[in-house]
Amino acid sequence: MAKDKPARRPRAETPKGFRDYFGAEVTERKAMLDRIAGVYHAYGFDPLETSAVETVEALGKFLPDVDRPNEGVFAWQEEDQDWLALRYDLTAPLARVAAQYRNDLPSPYRRYAMGPVWRNEKPGPGRFRQFYQCDADTVGAPSVAADAEICAMLADALEVVGIPRGDYVVRVNNRKVLNGVMEVAGVLDPADPDRFHEERGIVLRAIDKIDRLGEDGVRALLGAGRKDESGDFTKGAGLSDAQAEVVMSFMAAKRATGAETVARLRELVGGSAIGQEGVAELETIAALLDAQGYGPDRIEIDPSVVRGLGYYTGPVFEAELTFEILDEKGRPRRFGSVAGGGRYDDLVKRFTGQAVPATGVSIGVDRLLAALRAKGRIGGAVEGPVVVTVMDRDRMAEYMAMVGELRQAGIRAEMYLGNPKNFGNQLKYADKRASPVAVIQGGDEAAKGTVILKDLVLGAKIAENATLEEWKDRPAQVEVPRADLVAEVRKMLGQ
Amino acid sequence: MAKDKPARRPRAETPKGFRDYFGAEVTERKAMLDRIAGVYHAYGFDPLETSAVETVEALGKFLPDVDRPNEGVFAWQEEDQDWLALRYDLTAPLARVAAQYRNDLPSPYRRYAMGPVWRNEKPGPGRFRQFYQCDADTVGAPSVAADAEICAMLADALEVVGIPRGDYVVRVNNRKVLNGVMEVAGVLDPADPDRFHEERGIVLRAIDKIDRLGEDGVRALLGAGRKDESGDFTKGAGLSDAQAEVVMSFMAAKRATGAETVARLRELVGGSAIGQEGVAELETIAALLDAQGYGPDRIEIDPSVVRGLGYYTGPVFEAELTFEILDEKGRPRRFGSVAGGGRYDDLVKRFTGQAVPATGVSIGVDRLLAALRAKGRIGGAVEGPVVVTVMDRDRMAEYMAMVGELRQAGIRAEMYLGNPKNFGNQLKYADKRASPVAVIQGGDEAAKGTVILKDLVLGAKIAENATLEEWKDRPAQVEVPRADLVAEVRKMLGQ
Repeated sequence: MAKDKPARRPRAETPKGFRDYFGAEVTERKAMLDRIAGVYHAYGFDPLETSAVETVEALGKFLPDVDRPNEGVFAWQEEDQDWLALRYDLTAPLARVAAQYRNDLPSPYRRYAMGPVWRNEKPGPGRFRQFYQCDADTVGAPSVAADAEICAMLADALEVVGIPRGDYVVRVNNRKVLNGVMEVAGVLDPADPDRFHEERGIVLRAIDKIDRLGEDGVRALLGAGRKDESGDFTKGAGLSDAQAEVVMSFMAAKRATGAETVARLRELVGGSAIGQEGVAELETIAALLDAQGYGPDRIEIDPSVVRGLGYYTGPVFEAELTFEILDEKGRPRRFGSVAGGGRYDDLVKRFTGQAVPATGVSIGVDRLLAALRAKGRIGGAVEGPVVVTVMDRDRMAEYMAMVGELRQAGIRAEMYLGNPKNFGNQLKYADKRASPVAVIQGGDEAAKGTVILKDLVLGAKIAENATLEEWKDRPAQVEVPRADLVAEVRKMLGQ
Repeated sequence: MAKDKPARRPRAETPKGFRDYFGAEVTERKAMLDRIAGVYHAYGFDPLETSAVETVEALGKFLPDVDRPNEGVFAWQEEDQDWLALRYDLTAPLARVAAQYRNDLPSPYRRYAMGPVWRNEKPGPGRFRQFYQCDADTVGAPSVAADAEICAMLADALEVVGIPRGDYVVRVNNRKVLNGVMEVAGVLDPADPDRFHEERGIVLRAIDKIDRLGEDGVRALLGAGRKDESGDFTKGAGLSDAQAEVVMSFMAAKRATGAETVARLRELVGGSAIGQEGVAELETIAALLDAQGYGPDRIEIDPSVVRGLGYYTGPVFEAELTFEILDEKGRPRRFGSVAGGGRYDDLVKRFTGQAVPATGVSIGVDRLLAALRAKGRIGGAVEGPVVVTVMDRDRMAEYMAMVGELRQAGIRAEMYLGNPKNFGNQLKYADKRASPVAVIQGGDEAAKGTVILKDLVLGAKIAENATLEEWKDRPAQVEVPRADLVAEVRKMLGQ
């Protein structure tokens, strides 16, 4: 479009770390998000779509302390010196909105948001710089009933997109309980919260590695440290055996029922005030969920949920898919986490100075889509259009009338719009479009008042196995009266 | 979230020229786009969602000839020196995709795209720097059957979102016909296409102003020039009366039927080869559309369609809504254009060196939404949730069980999650949520096994007019058995 063409042609390339979505990739994701939105709507959540662009100041995490504040975000400077950036998640914009419209929004404010976010990171395999998030949050609700509601809603959302009950579990923990255990273990001093900060970090990371390192590996990290197979040494938290035992007991605190787990946690946090508060919150959440019929088959208290704990201040939750898939090396493994969230503070406070409690969940859209694909819920047959071929350029009006009739009858249909000279190309095109039926009318058929219908699904099956017994009586091609076009195409489509 | 808080609080503001969409603003747009997507799908178009970010090189129009190539786009430089930018429309990314995936995509490639685009312009009233576009294009189809198809699809799309037949018209013209007329008028020389460039520009702008200036005003601009009421003088194209007459005849060439208009245009372009080609194309388009039943009540040939002609190379089309609305000053005026498009070349050629014909349409999403709002098609009642109030903190599990039951029955419902101390606040909240029914169960009701249902829709009507006769027999509040909660709420909702 530029008048002065550059000497060399531009490269036709998606920028590094970005991707394009075609056809079913778009519609499958959309269908999944539509179903989730239906659940969110039923729970009284309202949609919010913020602008993709925020001031760097409002995003907060990335304040311009260097010349170019693009660490982690895509940012640029406006002529008036303001720095703008693409949002990196959907929570920071929610914080801005909750502050900006605080006099107009209902309180509590339940909102959901779905859309792309951008991360300025080194791209890698399966790691993109633009991806979808799907969040639901409640702002301004201090009660853990809000957390319980989010957990129930998450379970409903998973079922509505096609994850059957039994194939997932929403696991709930509480940051306060862990803090209570830390206090009992002697690595948290309520009078001096910053003390033992490094030790607690090591403990957290050790807990997070239980699946990979096993009990002995975690014990080593809680104590003096651990040497791995390669001989590398990881420094431990330096806990005594007695201290380590407290932490190990916490991780093993899960019992057969929620009530028993709660009782065990209550023992473990002993006299810690924050710990007792956390246990009471878990107990309330479990009771509220039970009252709605969400038993431990769907939502369970699980002290081993640690991921993201650093960020949260109260209840935390994670949805795990429990069915197995094969990894790259063909070994079976659990599908794993597809969503996580929890309660966090200081969201709106940055802007207004006033603390506003908030809790929410974020569903990993690509992870959940991958799960549905693994379960065969999506990725099936694509509904290609019926293709009306062009045998005679002068009779395009008649071909267009045919597609018009088919569409009127609710059948996806199109006329071949390329150069019609080579008929083979038209059939190749129909094949590429996953077309179920090709409609053909040459001069002979036109004179007779007929059309030929080619069953391309059957054709493909015969091509796979020409002697296929079951197909032998079914004609791959029929000639029918022009007036019966719609009815005969319907028949061929099995409608 | 930052540990070191800045001295002053960040401003909670949407960046200048950007906006946020709440609740119905999101769902109404989505519903409209879903319906349009349904039509596109039926026509065999496949969705494409490209990344929001493109290389500045691929966008093309804004090549970095200055230090900072941000003219019109939001752009930033990557560490590896590549400039990236947010897409400014959906056509430039299509060009990139058509070139990048040319060996994989079907040809012709029919695709639709819906999503935000970004413009780095000075914001103004109603003028945003991020807005939605909704495009459908066919790449690789040389035949004007592709243009006809787009016109028919556009008409169907308008009807499916709620613009009734008779309230819109798709007007079709052809750039080649105008070139033929220019040739006849002596301001286009096929042997030297750049000659008379300035004159043609003035002619184009004059044609575009017919609605505002009237015939005399346009004649003045075609000739010596025009002085407006304020005394300002606009230079004319300098055409003789005879030359001007050719242009004026073109603008008045529309006849009662498409066939008559075509015949008149054929007279006007005389011996101009390009003009004759353009007329033949219009004739073909009209015939193809007629064969599908799209008569001039929906799609008509109209030589006065000029907008955007500079950009296009063949057929152009514009959808105009013909019903009247009141302008800012209360005067009735036609709603006007909501979509436009046409055939363009050199789309993919920039990348591959190979010309690929393309045609497409872009619907102005915000304009069309405004039209639907003006027609009362959207913007009606919002479906707020039933709100279960909290009278007794200790019985939250029971309240949550109630919302669970309501949702199971397909009724949007939520429990009040704010501080329940002040009951008046709970009802104010329900009001803000446009809640139709509030559910109340205090200790007395719990003991009796009942709940109170408050009809908030009725309550609001009574508040408007307390003596309203028609409401007097309908109770605004009923006490019903707890077991009948769902059935009684249903009744109150009129389900």
